[in-house]
Amino acid sequence: QTSSVTLYGVADAAVRQVKNGSAGTVRGVASGANTTSRLGVRGVEQLGGGLSAGFNLESGIELDTGSANASKFWNRRSTVSLMGDFGEVRLGRDTTPTYNNALNDEFGIVGVGSRGVFVYGSSAVLGSGATTAQRTDNGVSYFLPKNLGGWFGQVHVAAGEGVAGNKYTGGRLGYENSQFLVGGAIGQTDVGSGQPKFKNYNLLFNYKSPWGTLHTLLDVKKWGQRKAQELSVGATVPVTQAGSIRVGYTNVNRAGGAAGSGYADADDSTRFALGYVHDLSKRTALYGTYANISNKGAARSSVLYTTPTGMRGGESSSGMEVGMRHSF
Amino acid sequence: QTSSVTLYGVADAAVRQVKNGSAGTVRGVASGANTTSRLGVRGVEQLGGGLSAGFNLESGIELDTGSANASKFWNRRSTVSLMGDFGEVRLGRDTTPTYNNALNDEFGIVGVGSRGVFVYGSSAVLGSGATTAQRTDNGVSYFLPKNLGGWFGQVHVAAGEGVAGNKYTGGRLGYENSQFLVGGAIGQTDVGSGQPKFKNYNLLFNYKSPWGTLHTLLDVKKWGQRKAQELSVGATVPVTQAGSIRVGYTNVNRAGGAAGSGYADADDSTRFALGYVHDLSKRTALYGTYANISNKGAARSSVLYTTPTGMRGGESSSGMEVGMRHSF
Amino acid sequence: QTSSVTLYGVADAAVRQVKNGSAGTVRGVASGANTTSRLGVRGVEQLGGGLSAGFNLESGIELDTGSANASKFWNRRSTVSLMGDFGEVRLGRDTTPTYNNALNDEFGIVGVGSRGVFVYGSSAVLGSGATTAQRTDNGVSYFLPKNLGGWFGQVHVAAGEGVAGNKYTGGRLGYENSQFLVGGAIGQTDVGSGQPKFKNYNLLFNYKSPWGTLHTLLDVKKWGQRKAQELSVGATVPVTQAGSIRVGYTNVNRAGGAAGSGYADADDSTRFALGYVHDLSKRTALYGTYANISNKGAARSSVLYTTPTGMRGGESSSGMEVGMRHSF
Repeated sequence: QTSSVTLYGVADAAVRQVKNGSAGTVRGVASGANTTSRLGVRGVEQLGGGLSAGFNLESGIELDTGSANASKFWNRRSTVSLMGDFGEVRLGRDTTPTYNNALNDEFGIVGVGSRGVFVYGSSAVLGSGATTAQRTDNGVSYFLPKNLGGWFGQVHVAAGEGVAGNKYTGGRLGYENSQFLVGGAIGQTDVGSGQPKFKNYNLLFNYKSPWGTLHTLLDVKKWGQRKAQELSVGATVPVTQAGSIRVGYTNVNRAGGAAGSGYADADDSTRFALGYVHDLSKRTALYGTYANISNKGAARSSVLYTTPTGMRGGESSSGMEVGMRHSF
Repeated sequence: QTSSVTLYGVADAAVRQVKNGSAGTVRGVASGANTTSRLGVRGVEQLGGGLSAGFNLESGIELDTGSANASKFWNRRSTVSLMGDFGEVRLGRDTTPTYNNALNDEFGIVGVGSRGVFVYGSSAVLGSGATTAQRTDNGVSYFLPKNLGGWFGQVHVAAGEGVAGNKYTGGRLGYENSQFLVGGAIGQTDVGSGQPKFKNYNLLFNYKSPWGTLHTLLDVKKWGQRKAQELSVGATVPVTQAGSIRVGYTNVNRAGGAAGSGYADADDSTRFALGYVHDLSKRTALYGTYANISNKGAARSSVLYTTPTGMRGGESSSGMEVGMRHSF
Repeated sequence: QTSSVTLYGVADAAVRQVKNGSAGTVRGVASGANTTSRLGVRGVEQLGGGLSAGFNLESGIELDTGSANASKFWNRRSTVSLMGDFGEVRLGRDTTPTYNNALNDEFGIVGVGSRGVFVYGSSAVLGSGATTAQRTDNGVSYFLPKNLGGWFGQVHVAAGEGVAGNKYTGGRLGYENSQFLVGGAIGQTDVGSGQPKFKNYNLLFNYKSPWGTLHTLLDVKKWGQRKAQELSVGATVPVTQAGSIRVGYTNVNRAGGAAGSGYADADDSTRFALGYVHDLSKRTALYGTYANISNKGAARSSVLYTTPTGMRGGESSSGMEVGMRHSF
């Protein structure tokens, strides 16, 4: 038994100031504002005949406090895979197709500037209790092989094992070449008997050009009468050899919820973010970001993924952060 | 200070369906049905003069959910050792002699097919509150040296440090050659003042032949009037270059407990299991297992290590699983 | 992305007996009595132009039970750094300047013999609720460069992020050459609005000679009226090629607290400790320590970092331990 283990990760921390309406201003240190801080272990074994086996364990780290997830240490991923000409079969805890399809944005889906707050933040599942906005436990996934001329895809089912909010079924199909990346994904989650299913579908289109990359996403979520439609546009623009500017905008159009619920027609949100990343190497960068989210009606979206309790509906949220990311 | 660290582990997951009488059927993904999923770190330093020092940390992983043990991260082992011609002295959390002696079965003591449910499952300590069925905290062990012509042995004491159920004293002695493995072990646990001690002894005999390996175990547990005697017979039979069939049977004869306690004379259980393992390499295998446990009287043994609350006395339990194990 | 990760750590366990007055005697196995048991991951990347980036994650291990810190897995350190001619900027969870300055004692600040019980044990923060006796979350540190001819120093601020007891500001300045090490540090912690700040300053002077090293520390803590002044003297004396004797004494002079609080003028404590360390290699050692703490008035200091509840004011505490430390 020879060891083929790779230990990898990211250490990323930033000095951050956020203001969330009546919840006030907090200054402090934040983890993973450019790339989520993590420690991972992975390996692949060639089995012959084109077959291979692999595993991947990945644990999120709150670098500002030293915390890992107490109940799910390998909270980001814990999978075993069999790969071959047929594609890949993967078992365990992993990201969902709908999340995978929304990942590729100008802010790496993290930090105060990210559109991620609408993809998987506090109110992303419309109050349904679905736990599947990012990842599922008990997943069984099939991925298409990698030699399909740019086409990629997956189907993913997750057993609920009797827990409401955990059972998920979804899929993703896409195409990428040197000029663009396009992908679509759908997913639905059982959130309890007698409850409508929580549904999510999204369409991503990124255009790559010499002047930079354009990022767009249309993401739609539904739960019974409640519906949220998120439209995001962003860009990553290199301005020097090592530096690039990032800008992003999102409009979230909510509807169908009761008045004052935060999911009513009046409860819309708008995000604007501007950032700069300066690469010190391929692995290491300094960065700075400013972002603002405006809310209408009873909407309470924050630049933080969990809205502070003191923030009221319709108030705005803003954040600034300056930090350093080091991959290893 | 040069580093001599080896990172190792197992990623093992299976699709599983179990039925536990009135508790009903659950389908899902299970971790470690062939070999317990884990991540470990170990190393040995040669000190000269035949002496060496070593350590071993090992953390169990629920690969289906990404969970590790929240309160005891290194729950499988955390030890430091001094080794030499005299043998080995080992301090820390480790498996007990009685458990070590029962380990070597046809199903690797895990999965729905394993006899492990009787060795360390819910009712294995006869309701005594002993925490020592598999491992102890605060252990001090001495192991015989490895050059005794096939003889091996250990003594193990674990300090209770004032916690009922934790104080353990035990030992193991055995002999192995190319044809057979035989071992005997005894252990006892303090479960509180005024309480009888929980006692366990077992005798293992495995016979290795060209057609395969025969596995037998006699395991006896006592706590005051309560007694359980487990007799297991199993076999591992290679059927192709890469494939082997595994079959196992256990009869558990309980006695001495009050009527309806699950430990009365009427409360016996019988296990039958059949499995197949297909090696893709030395490190990686696919496997499938079917198992059934029949209970009489108030016995509630399940193919799961923790019997679901809804399962009633005398009901039967069955399980099927198909999975993949990858060691690294 | 090439990996530059080093996995390192310490496995240290001892057989220990402690007696804490009316709380009685406990025998058992203890972790980290010579050096705290731990597992760490670290790396440095050269960025060119004298710049480098680094990270360090370190998790404490209770080797006797296999436990890690449940809520802060990387409880000892989780940092990312940018280093250059200017020095080092470090973000994350780390030790404080006041703790760093008190670290360098004859017992490595751990085990029953250490003066550490007064530096960061139960009563070290004078009941103020400060959480900063050893480490802070959300830290931002600046370290002087390493080429200042023996001078070293740091400033450290930690954001409270709204939590009483967490906000810390401090610094350290020192000088070391082949003959002596001298350092001074100051720090203060916000423990809640309307409360006086918890303050700590200390002065360390160690003298290195052919016959061994003399260790001295003056450590003063204040919180409102409460004050504790600790004076420690110790020595490490090589007696053979591989063996050295360690001896230490501390007098803690408390004042200002209400009668019976444990912080009154009558509530003083005295520590005496004697130990021996036998190196089996640079990385591995056997060791033994005896220590006693005498308390007056309502003082309840123990050789354990957390005083057992049953121990009464004015009672004495003593401990003996024999163990093994292995670094990797």
